[in-house]
Amino acid sequence: MSDERMPIKALEAVINEVVSIKLKDQRVFRGKLTRCDVYMNLTLADAEELESDEVRAKYGSILIRGNNILWIQIPE
Amino acid sequence: MSDERMPIKALEAVINEVVSIKLKDQRVFRGKLTRCDVYMNLTLADAEELESDEVRAKYGSILIRGNNILWIQIPE
Amino acid sequence: MSDERMPIKALEAVINEVVSIKLKDQRVFRGKLTRCDVYMNLTLADAEELESDEVRAKYGSILIRGNNILWIQIPE
Amino acid sequence: MSDERMPIKALEAVINEVVSIKLKDQRVFRGKLTRCDVYMNLTLADAEELESDEVRAKYGSILIRGNNILWIQIPE
Amino acid sequence: MSDERMPIKALEAVINEVVSIKLKDQRVFRGKLTRCDVYMNLTLADAEELESDEVRAKYGSILIRGNNILWIQIPE
Amino acid sequence: MSDERMPIKALEAVINEVVSIKLKDQRVFRGKLTRCDVYMNLTLADAEELESDEVRAKYGSILIRGNNILWIQIPE
Amino acid sequence: MSDERMPIKALEAVINEVVSIKLKDQRVFRGKLTRCDVYMNLTLADAEELESDEVRAKYGSILIRGNNILWIQIPE
Repeated sequence: MSDERMPIKALEAVINEVVSIKLKDQRVFRGKLTRCDVYMNLTLADAEELESDEVRAKYGSILIRGNNILWIQIPE
Repeated sequence: MSDERMPIKALEAVINEVVSIKLKDQRVFRGKLTRCDVYMNLTLADAEELESDEVRAKYGSILIRGNNILWIQIPE
Repeated sequence: MSDERMPIKALEAVINEVVSIKLKDQRVFRGKLTRCDVYMNLTLADAEELESDEVRAKYGSILIRGNNILWIQIPE
Repeated sequence: MSDERMPIKALEAVINEVVSIKLKDQRVFRGKLTRCDVYMNLTLADAEELESDEVRAKYGSILIRGNNILWIQIPE
Repeated sequence: MSDERMPIKALEAVINEVVSIKLKDQRVFRGKLTRCDVYMNLTLADAEELESDEVRAKYGSILIRGNNILWIQIPE
Repeated sequence: MSDERMPIKALEAVINEVVSIKLKDQRVFRGKLTRCDVYMNLTLADAEELESDEVRAKYGSILIRGNNILWIQIPE
Repeated sequence: MSDERMPIKALEAVINEVVSIKLKDQRVFRGKLTRCDVYMNLTLADAEELESDEVRAKYGSILIRGNNILWIQIPE
């Protein structure tokens, strides 16, 4: 399997696009992906916390620690 | 044991097929497997979240962090 | 201790035989062991989920992530 | 991806600025970031613990172990 | 400290003897220790699950994943 | 970032001083820091366990395993 | 920091002395420390399980897996 086929490459490919992130504590964050690494540590700009699709809080820029992430919705 | 006999090879063998994934939080996702790595990090296209076999949400493409996975149902 | 005395070798020795697997979430799976690795990642064919020794669901082939496993009953 | 694009660099870039940190136990700390490393271990000066945006306790300088961190709000 | 003084050596020394094992989920297993490794992965023959010192189930041979183990009672 | 700027150095700098330590189970210990390592394993002399700022128990010298630590209050 | 100043050395220094050990599940064990390693895996002789300072059970020799340990009270 070539390095380009790694799942994390699908994340790197959407840098500067908006992603939604589900954390293990079931909270959802949405924002523009600005950085990521192989542990799925990542930074979002214009980050929002959502609850039942409603915005619950706005945080500006946040750094999320990758080990808390369940999954990331990636724009197509 | 040859590398081809590793369990993760059974997952790589079904790239582009539909798999069902049970997470530790007991949620089930179903979609077309598009990427995977040795940690079971993986991406699904046309991803659906299921509850009692009913579709609960649709997410398009998602990247699931492997350490959340309990098991993956593999098409035969 | 020679490599052949490693616990994981007891699992490799029963490839193609039926094993029962208890997961940390207390669920039990039974099926024919088809692949395994040193992390106890493994694949089962004809996998069944059991509850109080009754079959609760059938999954065909599944890949179980090793870190979820409590113990594996090995045929003698 | 150059090293400068790593998410942790976004944290190093705000040394001596005020950050807010959400822990896995849902507590929030705010203080001046004085040190950090790649595991997100970090030290805060003038650290405050917040509850519903109210200051609940003041601790002076604290060292937070990175593996407890959910996310860090980074000043822009 | 010589390698012979490592705690795991106390376990290797009782191969073929009966041990009792307390798991993190508070269940107790008893059986003849047949294999072990440095992660405390181990196999038991004639394995019994106990509840309040009563036999609750018999499993024949089992492989227990070491990271589930709280402690092991070692015969003297 | 020079090694001296690592967060753990802030802990080494207060060896022989009194620190307060919050554990993941929310208990608080206070005592004179006598040893520490990069995992935040550490020893306290004259260790006290606190509850709502009241002393609940005294333990003399204790060794705390670093992975249980949430944060450490460091004297300035 | 010299190797002799590592926290684990404080444990090695009390081999053959009686220690008390608090586990993450809040149980307390007391016994003569007979072996230990850098992961805090350790063996106790004449091991007792305590509840509110009362002896609840006696186990003879036990091997405790280090990752379950919260802290260890060390005799001075």
